[in-house]
Amino acid sequence: MTIRVTVWNEFRHEKENPKVSAVYPDGIHAQIKTLLGREADFAITTATLDEPEHGLPQQVLDGTDVLVWWGHKAHADVSDAVVERVRERVWAGMGLIVLHSGHYSKIFKTLMGTSCSLKWREADDNERIWIVNPGHAIASGLPEYIDIEREEMYGELFDIPAPDELIMISWFKGGEVFRSGCTYTRGLGKIFYFRPGHETYPTYHNPVIGKVLANSIRWAAPNQGPVPTFHNYQPLEK
Amino acid sequence: MTIRVTVWNEFRHEKENPKVSAVYPDGIHAQIKTLLGREADFAITTATLDEPEHGLPQQVLDGTDVLVWWGHKAHADVSDAVVERVRERVWAGMGLIVLHSGHYSKIFKTLMGTSCSLKWREADDNERIWIVNPGHAIASGLPEYIDIEREEMYGELFDIPAPDELIMISWFKGGEVFRSGCTYTRGLGKIFYFRPGHETYPTYHNPVIGKVLANSIRWAAPNQGPVPTFHNYQPLEK
Amino acid sequence: MTIRVTVWNEFRHEKENPKVSAVYPDGIHAQIKTLLGREADFAITTATLDEPEHGLPQQVLDGTDVLVWWGHKAHADVSDAVVERVRERVWAGMGLIVLHSGHYSKIFKTLMGTSCSLKWREADDNERIWIVNPGHAIASGLPEYIDIEREEMYGELFDIPAPDELIMISWFKGGEVFRSGCTYTRGLGKIFYFRPGHETYPTYHNPVIGKVLANSIRWAAPNQGPVPTFHNYQPLEK
Amino acid sequence: MTIRVTVWNEFRHEKENPKVSAVYPDGIHAQIKTLLGREADFAITTATLDEPEHGLPQQVLDGTDVLVWWGHKAHADVSDAVVERVRERVWAGMGLIVLHSGHYSKIFKTLMGTSCSLKWREADDNERIWIVNPGHAIASGLPEYIDIEREEMYGELFDIPAPDELIMISWFKGGEVFRSGCTYTRGLGKIFYFRPGHETYPTYHNPVIGKVLANSIRWAAPNQGPVPTFHNYQPLEK
Repeated sequence: MTIRVTVWNEFRHEKENPKVSAVYPDGIHAQIKTLLGREADFAITTATLDEPEHGLPQQVLDGTDVLVWWGHKAHADVSDAVVERVRERVWAGMGLIVLHSGHYSKIFKTLMGTSCSLKWREADDNERIWIVNPGHAIASGLPEYIDIEREEMYGELFDIPAPDELIMISWFKGGEVFRSGCTYTRGLGKIFYFRPGHETYPTYHNPVIGKVLANSIRWAAPNQGPVPTFHNYQPLEK
Repeated sequence: MTIRVTVWNEFRHEKENPKVSAVYPDGIHAQIKTLLGREADFAITTATLDEPEHGLPQQVLDGTDVLVWWGHKAHADVSDAVVERVRERVWAGMGLIVLHSGHYSKIFKTLMGTSCSLKWREADDNERIWIVNPGHAIASGLPEYIDIEREEMYGELFDIPAPDELIMISWFKGGEVFRSGCTYTRGLGKIFYFRPGHETYPTYHNPVIGKVLANSIRWAAPNQGPVPTFHNYQPLEK
Repeated sequence: MTIRVTVWNEFRHEKENPKVSAVYPDGIHAQIKTLLGREADFAITTATLDEPEHGLPQQVLDGTDVLVWWGHKAHADVSDAVVERVRERVWAGMGLIVLHSGHYSKIFKTLMGTSCSLKWREADDNERIWIVNPGHAIASGLPEYIDIEREEMYGELFDIPAPDELIMISWFKGGEVFRSGCTYTRGLGKIFYFRPGHETYPTYHNPVIGKVLANSIRWAAPNQGPVPTFHNYQPLEK
Repeated sequence: MTIRVTVWNEFRHEKENPKVSAVYPDGIHAQIKTLLGREADFAITTATLDEPEHGLPQQVLDGTDVLVWWGHKAHADVSDAVVERVRERVWAGMGLIVLHSGHYSKIFKTLMGTSCSLKWREADDNERIWIVNPGHAIASGLPEYIDIEREEMYGELFDIPAPDELIMISWFKGGEVFRSGCTYTRGLGKIFYFRPGHETYPTYHNPVIGKVLANSIRWAAPNQGPVPTFHNYQPLEK
């Protein structure tokens, strides 16, 4: 069954910073689409901040099974109305994959109920992402750890609710750890936060990272579970 | 060590509905204070919606270890500024006990990230609250189940995140179940949601309910854990 | 991809008790196989206690993706060697679906680390199984609750570890609740405990119960995650 | 209220290896007792493997609120009868603190239901134990991380069930991470696994480590929750 994936990207760094456009000439969203292109069961479209309604009008969201979110410097420019719209869709079952600096997006913070703050450092740290739940669907086809030669560091405390499932923990050369792969459910929607992906590194050119994204998209795709009803409920007549 | 408890109540039903004031002549907050009065380690004050700043100016919150919240018909009248202030205090470590219809309060919803909706019925259902985590601090001194002769029914789906710990499940005579005692952590703050307490029933006159409240207040009182720092973090020099 | 399912049944009640054989003339295992027969992606075989090695020699387990377990009166007759063999396969990734009175099987108890005790009653209680995690893969295609007209009652406390995910809670007419659908992971193996299925009731003739079983089998099927290595590990050379 | 603590130690390394006895001349158990000596609410005794019944006859366990367990090279010498006895006491509410190589003890493995295997290395790795649940009782009074200059490395995958609460994650200089502070409940008993403490390092002379132990002992001390009953249960007569 085809999974309809929308990859959303802020798409500002790429236009303003040659260092970023050198890595992602068509934007991070385009590269993620390319990275996922081999997955025959995905129908992928993209959307970006500066499109009308940020590229996420209601009909686009209604046609999205899983939304992938990359944002960083312009979280504040995302309109509250669109955030509310995305949240309603997550509650109704749309999957949400939040990448890297998306930890600080309005949509992630409103779904978590915490500050989602963390420590960070741009210093070309070597990162090793250890898989701590190897039986999970998101770990399928992965090695024991994913070695990323250089990335931005994110360090604990990562101020999130305790994940429903902790899939990955990152090690950084400078001395820090980070809960890098975390699942949550909000309403009917499944959420996966995945840490790596700073805009100046070629992380989304890495096929192992693509494998994680593909796995998490399949995991987060909606199930056809019961649509809950909320109302004044009459007793069982028996 | 004394735990500074503030019991917050909407305090509207009691002024408007004789059926409620017959049960809680001085307000639900006053009765909860009375119910907890035997606990020598608690210093209890109260606050209500129609006081200035809803009785929760910054200095009151700064002097509160655990906030107990009862609201129902006037959630919308709680100002966003006070909700934000309470949330910041929870994140900084203040405990929060959310009672009954407080499931739909702004503060609970913003901390949960879900709709917090449910089914309900006012039909004098018998409720049995089964303890499913008897080793937990909140279960201390409780029987295997708490039998409440008549209460409002709340039924699943209760649209909340999976609780960090599920302590209690309610059975209702009419055919429903409900996750009635749920713990969460948000930032440094510990949260306990406890279901019973509809305004027309004498639930807060019940000493077993008082025992649950006292246990949960002690459990939710702040620990002196590390205050997390969030910033550009320099590497370990070794 | 085909999932290789082995349905294991104690198969003693059916031979000894006409009341049971009236409901399950060919055995509970045969009826579960029939119930799952419409699932085109399953290759189903059965095994029973009184076969050599209980029908579970190493090569059968090696060829099993998901094992379904029904046992009741003869838990003690299952050899420790076979229990150990099954446990090793679960740790290596085989899924395990434990049904009803299997809560007290050697294999479930050894994987849980608790007594797995509970309350029970054979009194034709009406059971309502409420779905409390409707976004979960196991809830796909289910109604808000499953109504079973008559079943054996199981009541809390169910002495299990807190489930990784709680999917279902049962209500019983007599006044009890029960955590009826619980997931766990042990090693690489995913485990689902599902409550209903007393031998004197036609529960495994119910297509909605079949839907739960099919969903849980797909959920529990092995992923091809990293095979963990445990050894004296040399440091990263960089 | 006084908490009765029994510190159990294998006490073999100290008698056989001068490098260990140089660090722990009276045994690891004696040093842990000394380390906890400042805690006025603890009544501490010790027990060791080579005492009769390993120093854990029934009456000692019956008089123990929290048992601390250190073992390494002689797990196999602990009798199954004593393991069974300890397990029964945990199920009945006794707290259990499992230290370092105790991950591989019979008692921990039987309570977890997994292999409890891991990677290791003795190479004087620097370890940093990051606190990821700073609001938890076990984190009280701790810094953001505990820096241990030299320790044995333990690395993921640590083959344990997903912890009920993950309190700490270790970073090791050589490139590994580890879930270092994990809570579980089994029956009424609360369990805390705490990683550091290899016999050749002075870890149990470190007052910050003592703080963790004291916090975890208070957290694991029994609550007086309902004693569950397991039996043929009669319906509510109403």
